[in-house]
Amino acid sequence: MVTIKDVARDAGVSVGTVSNVLNGGRVSEARRKLVEASIEKLGYQVNTLAKGMRMQKTDYVVVILPNLINPYFALLLDALESELSAVGKQVLLCLSGDNAEREVAFMDMAKQNKVDGIIGVTYSKVEEERIENMAFVSIDRHYKSHIPCVAGDNWQGGWLAAENLHKRGSTNLLCFMTMSSVDSEVRKRRVGFTEYCMEHDLSCNSVEMSEKQIVSVYESYGSRKLIHNMLRAYISPSMGEHSIDGIFTSSDHLATIVREELEEMGKRVPEDIQIIGYDGLQFLNQGKPIVSSIAQPLHEIAKQAVKSLTDMIENGKAEDVTNIPVTFHEGSTTKPLETISE
Amino acid sequence: MVTIKDVARDAGVSVGTVSNVLNGGRVSEARRKLVEASIEKLGYQVNTLAKGMRMQKTDYVVVILPNLINPYFALLLDALESELSAVGKQVLLCLSGDNAEREVAFMDMAKQNKVDGIIGVTYSKVEEERIENMAFVSIDRHYKSHIPCVAGDNWQGGWLAAENLHKRGSTNLLCFMTMSSVDSEVRKRRVGFTEYCMEHDLSCNSVEMSEKQIVSVYESYGSRKLIHNMLRAYISPSMGEHSIDGIFTSSDHLATIVREELEEMGKRVPEDIQIIGYDGLQFLNQGKPIVSSIAQPLHEIAKQAVKSLTDMIENGKAEDVTNIPVTFHEGSTTKPLETISE
Repeated sequence: MVTIKDVARDAGVSVGTVSNVLNGGRVSEARRKLVEASIEKLGYQVNTLAKGMRMQKTDYVVVILPNLINPYFALLLDALESELSAVGKQVLLCLSGDNAEREVAFMDMAKQNKVDGIIGVTYSKVEEERIENMAFVSIDRHYKSHIPCVAGDNWQGGWLAAENLHKRGSTNLLCFMTMSSVDSEVRKRRVGFTEYCMEHDLSCNSVEMSEKQIVSVYESYGSRKLIHNMLRAYISPSMGEHSIDGIFTSSDHLATIVREELEEMGKRVPEDIQIIGYDGLQFLNQGKPIVSSIAQPLHEIAKQAVKSLTDMIENGKAEDVTNIPVTFHEGSTTKPLETISE
Repeated sequence: MVTIKDVARDAGVSVGTVSNVLNGGRVSEARRKLVEASIEKLGYQVNTLAKGMRMQKTDYVVVILPNLINPYFALLLDALESELSAVGKQVLLCLSGDNAEREVAFMDMAKQNKVDGIIGVTYSKVEEERIENMAFVSIDRHYKSHIPCVAGDNWQGGWLAAENLHKRGSTNLLCFMTMSSVDSEVRKRRVGFTEYCMEHDLSCNSVEMSEKQIVSVYESYGSRKLIHNMLRAYISPSMGEHSIDGIFTSSDHLATIVREELEEMGKRVPEDIQIIGYDGLQFLNQGKPIVSSIAQPLHEIAKQAVKSLTDMIENGKAEDVTNIPVTFHEGSTTKPLETISE
């Protein structure tokens, strides 16, 4: 392994001179050429970790996500990696599995290793002292302190979902959500949805399942029974004219599960009941989206998160909350607008 | 920032003693307690990067993947992160975007930063000198040298696909693949498929589209015209009894696109034409898989890749090629076995 000392010896200069060449310090042109020739000749490779340490920072950013099984997180990470590498930073990946202890361990690790900062989707409770004095940007979760939060505009997303169900003829609406135990920006989806319903005098119901349930929704077939029973409660002949005819779900995945359950109950989607999901992830079917959805602006979220982190690193502060506009993507679970008789 | 010197001064011992405590060296019980009390009191945090450097290695493993848009890579990364963190290593993520220059830059970065090793899905040509003397484990691509390769058993996957189409009544088969320009284990899928057809005297056709095409399949709607035209060529009234009735595709994504195109041509899936995809990724629909598929054993691949990497780091060598068995997952694009009249 060639060291900086070997380079200095070969070039006939001091280690300090080599260091100045490497770090852009002042050095005569003649000496610079000698050092560069030796670096080339010996094949010396700058140890960027060592460099980062000397400067009390590295070029790494820790990214904390719950998992990559949920395609929203996989696509978000793809976008974050792209934005970070564009500013010369690399992703140190931490998957927490929604485990608070792991999240805390990752934050301590980040602190110990003097990384540039953390961008995290953290759902469990984190003591805020732990991330104080660190460049930390939260996605989707609003901490109460000065930690910047970047999110798609969840309130607007809920409003858009209700508006699009209503415009397509649904009047008995249901908001079907999974919810984290911590205060997350995601809750605003329900608020936007409910406010649209109130303003337009629509019947509006709301179901919230705990986060623990959604994890098992992703991982097993078992908890579908709960979803089935909840839907049954809202959709039955005995409900008469109050039977649900439009459902807004907190994810596209939940939307596809709800669709399956409805079809097993003999309901037609979208003829009898329309569904709008959330995230706009059309993985396996780019041509014809599987479910209608409120699409998250993933690349804009990633871009803004990296901008906020850079602001934090350079200026010690960044905008508190950034809400990025979302859009409605038409899929096969809502009726086309033009066929509605007004 | 508390340094090791501050700890030594506070405890009234030498820096070397503190270092011994931190690194498990020999030190008296009394001194150990003094040092531990000072570490606790001052809130000193061990710099693991610095520790890694002293030991000429860190606890990082570079993972190189083309992207996370393809769910196969997202799920593979989820599994790799889990396996690596179980052995105390962290993922330094590098997404190459199928760009050879980026892959090379990542390998150089890994070398410079003295990481433990690299696990990579690399499709572009990489000069083998670049990764010599490094712990490198390749997934899905077999380099010609001593670099260990871990993959699902692609030959068996191709054979299983043909066998399952045949058992369900298809006799005019088509292998519809996207192919990288480098020699990849993935090519063996076609070999296994073709060998089954030959052994059972089935009509077997094969189409290979260049890797560049599949990238645009993921990213745009444009190149679907090519897929449409190719399918048209094989499936038309003029083909008579030789018209294709079973298709094996190189991914589940391609399977869903083929299904859409067939339905637009007025063909019924699976009644007229059966399809089997590859990877077994049932993201949005865990209850009823969208396409029948050859399922990749993602967790076993990740486990074996990490084992091979550990073998390389500790013993300088690992098994050359590991093929892990794959399985057939029944979905909605093949007929159920029991309804076939033999």
